Amino acid sequence: MSSQSLDSFFTPKAVAFAGSIKPGKIGYEIIKSMKEGKYQGGIYPINPADGEVMGYKVYTSVSELPKDADLVVISLPHHAILETIAQCGRKGIYAAVVISSGFSEVGNHEAERDLVEEASKWGIRIVGPNCAGLMNPWYNHFPSIEVRALPGYTAFVTQSGALGGATLAMAEELGFGFSKFISYGNRCDVGDIELLSYLADDPQTRVIVLYIEGIDKGREFLRSAHAASKKKPVVAIKSGRTQAGTRATSSHTGTLAGVDQIYDAAFQKAGIIRVEGIEEMFDLCQAFSHCPLPNGNRVAIVTNSGGPGILAADKAEQLGLDVAEPPLSLKNKLKPHLSPHASLKNPIDLTVESGYDEYRIALDCVLSEYDSAIVINVATPYLDSTGIARGIIDAAKKHQKPIINNFMAGRIVKEAIQLLDEVNMVNLATGERGAFVLSKLTERIKIQERIQFASID
Amino acid sequence: MSSQSLDSFFTPKAVAFAGSIKPGKIGYEIIKSMKEGKYQGGIYPINPADGEVMGYKVYTSVSELPKDADLVVISLPHHAILETIAQCGRKGIYAAVVISSGFSEVGNHEAERDLVEEASKWGIRIVGPNCAGLMNPWYNHFPSIEVRALPGYTAFVTQSGALGGATLAMAEELGFGFSKFISYGNRCDVGDIELLSYLADDPQTRVIVLYIEGIDKGREFLRSAHAASKKKPVVAIKSGRTQAGTRATSSHTGTLAGVDQIYDAAFQKAGIIRVEGIEEMFDLCQAFSHCPLPNGNRVAIVTNSGGPGILAADKAEQLGLDVAEPPLSLKNKLKPHLSPHASLKNPIDLTVESGYDEYRIALDCVLSEYDSAIVINVATPYLDSTGIARGIIDAAKKHQKPIINNFMAGRIVKEAIQLLDEVNMVNLATGERGAFVLSKLTERIKIQERIQFASID
Repeated sequence: MSSQSLDSFFTPKAVAFAGSIKPGKIGYEIIKSMKEGKYQGGIYPINPADGEVMGYKVYTSVSELPKDADLVVISLPHHAILETIAQCGRKGIYAAVVISSGFSEVGNHEAERDLVEEASKWGIRIVGPNCAGLMNPWYNHFPSIEVRALPGYTAFVTQSGALGGATLAMAEELGFGFSKFISYGNRCDVGDIELLSYLADDPQTRVIVLYIEGIDKGREFLRSAHAASKKKPVVAIKSGRTQAGTRATSSHTGTLAGVDQIYDAAFQKAGIIRVEGIEEMFDLCQAFSHCPLPNGNRVAIVTNSGGPGILAADKAEQLGLDVAEPPLSLKNKLKPHLSPHASLKNPIDLTVESGYDEYRIALDCVLSEYDSAIVINVATPYLDSTGIARGIIDAAKKHQKPIINNFMAGRIVKEAIQLLDEVNMVNLATGERGAFVLSKLTERIKIQERIQFASID
Repeated sequence: MSSQSLDSFFTPKAVAFAGSIKPGKIGYEIIKSMKEGKYQGGIYPINPADGEVMGYKVYTSVSELPKDADLVVISLPHHAILETIAQCGRKGIYAAVVISSGFSEVGNHEAERDLVEEASKWGIRIVGPNCAGLMNPWYNHFPSIEVRALPGYTAFVTQSGALGGATLAMAEELGFGFSKFISYGNRCDVGDIELLSYLADDPQTRVIVLYIEGIDKGREFLRSAHAASKKKPVVAIKSGRTQAGTRATSSHTGTLAGVDQIYDAAFQKAGIIRVEGIEEMFDLCQAFSHCPLPNGNRVAIVTNSGGPGILAADKAEQLGLDVAEPPLSLKNKLKPHLSPHASLKNPIDLTVESGYDEYRIALDCVLSEYDSAIVINVATPYLDSTGIARGIIDAAKKHQKPIINNFMAGRIVKEAIQLLDEVNMVNLATGERGAFVLSKLTERIKIQERIQFASID
């Protein structure tokens, strides 16, 4: 394979597995996940104990493998890895995911240097070691021990395998999907820099997320992030903001966590959007995956209940969005279609008796005037929310503008949220979260304007 | 009833219902909710069409009602209410929940004045009008159209009926319970001031939450909140922080939303803890319901994964908690029991292979040294998290200190979280939320110290 391409990691023709084939062991569990995930290529376990495992023929050595194997997943003890790398080199397998730990993360820098040296001798690229593996859900490819991801449009690149695993488990619960997942562990070879450039051109990826504890090769990283940001949004969760966090970060990986303000400035320059944690990331990436960007920062809030509308308006204004009062012309346009008790000031409170027509007409009208909308439905058990969902969907069709919904809450809106999901409309837990997301979509336009013709040098 | 006591609202012997008895109508749906909620007292529908509804005898007038009725729930059209109020007065029913709308919220101030006048003529107390009703889940008493609350320790008092309803629907999904729920609507009589003093002495209430859009009688309100705060935590969500929010608030209710900074200062003086929205409220009230207060602000973070530990540490330090490094004596005490790769700096990273023993010993040791703990378990599908939960539970028994857990995530930790639930241990969605909650528990100690001997005059 070309040393420039990472294709064999994400779309291999066949995958070899060097590790234990005993149930409960990491090697076995990864093969099981590939099988359950319905991987379509060859699955070739390698183990001195030949025979079969889960219906797959076990090969006693790398040299015996069929020719089409182009990726190896290694979960052997760290001292047994070098020999396997050499065999893969001889066999023409040039991509290796090394799950095994026992390297620089525990101070064993020598073993890691040896691994890098042996791999580069053969032109083998490495993801890892000490990592949770990677996933390409669109290709049914799951060489990892973590909960299998659903296919989606968010690429997630994580320096912490465990945080990556937790993110996948939360995503499963939310029904949130990923285009790619990569835990690069100690980053002895393939890291953020190369992945950013690969994912920037990956057709299934609409937004790239990085979980970062510390970066090395700062300038190269920023150049790569800057180039990727020109093509699609790059979002980062950077831990180690404070003294306590930094202390922990320095102990946790080989890298030294830098001063937080330096990161902020650098991210800003590279066009990286920083978020605080996983929940903000989920909210934002849903919007980046499914919403067009707004043309400006004027947001309309359409609601059937005062309180939640106000909380959303407060947050929107705090975050720099313009919750402008509608012009008289718009008020006059709305008035005949809404309850006489409706408030037309923005938040536009349709009042509780509103359904399909009121939501459809109100949203259609405000989207002709505003850049984006937050649509809130505070449901009561005796009112049908599916009509409201259909009204929103019908109005949205006529506009290329971002809409964030907030259907509150629980089982009484389940069916309505299902309708929104089917047409990829975003629904978040609160209107405040909607305001946050729209503020970041607005930030993204500004980033695009700023970096379009700029360069980092 | 004594005009000072609100008991008939919350623990009535029998309840009369003046309103429609047609399925789908509010009157009918409230009776249905009382029945499904297994209310133990008499249920007396009043309607000109006599007969039966859902097995209950229908009375054609108030005068016919059995003598034990001490609360009436009114959902009649607004113009038909005065007569019913007078009849209740004659019958000796001195508490009325008026669900009906059409009063000051739509500018009909005259109707509201008439209602107040008629009620006070008879000594009848009113919750409402234009409200979502109230609930006492400990008494199976649900005179409301909203999702029935589970019994719990949080009293929720809301100026917005819809926001109250959405909160109940979210709570149902979370399994979060309430001691009392009160939507007071237009607050023509019973309001926050009186409810604060009632709930401060309510044995099932451990924390009082107010959702406020605007207050009237500012000084009386603050005096009542101050007195309540001496007895238990008072938490407020105050909407209308910004211009946009305030504009909406003024239109939404009869009250004028004040300048936000004035509220902040007043809340501070009264000992009210302000939170931003419903999610923060849920997190915090779980802790106030089930955790002792800390003695200080030193927090230990125990985790099996670096990343989430760091994010929690960052947030904790940002919020003013002290994420101090353990003294050498504590490190030495921990070392023999933990993995050689464990990091003892705080976050204390036990590493992924840790289970019952490591969590139990580490938590027990740190609680001897610190004021509180955040315990994070980032689960992997192939590790059993119930052992970790049991380790935490066993260590917690030996200490009277607040512990916030964060078991990440999804179905792989469901069973473990169930174990924590059974012993009323708090588990939140992220470690950052844990840090937020502990910062507010710490704020509460400071409030107690500050207001214990102070008074508002």
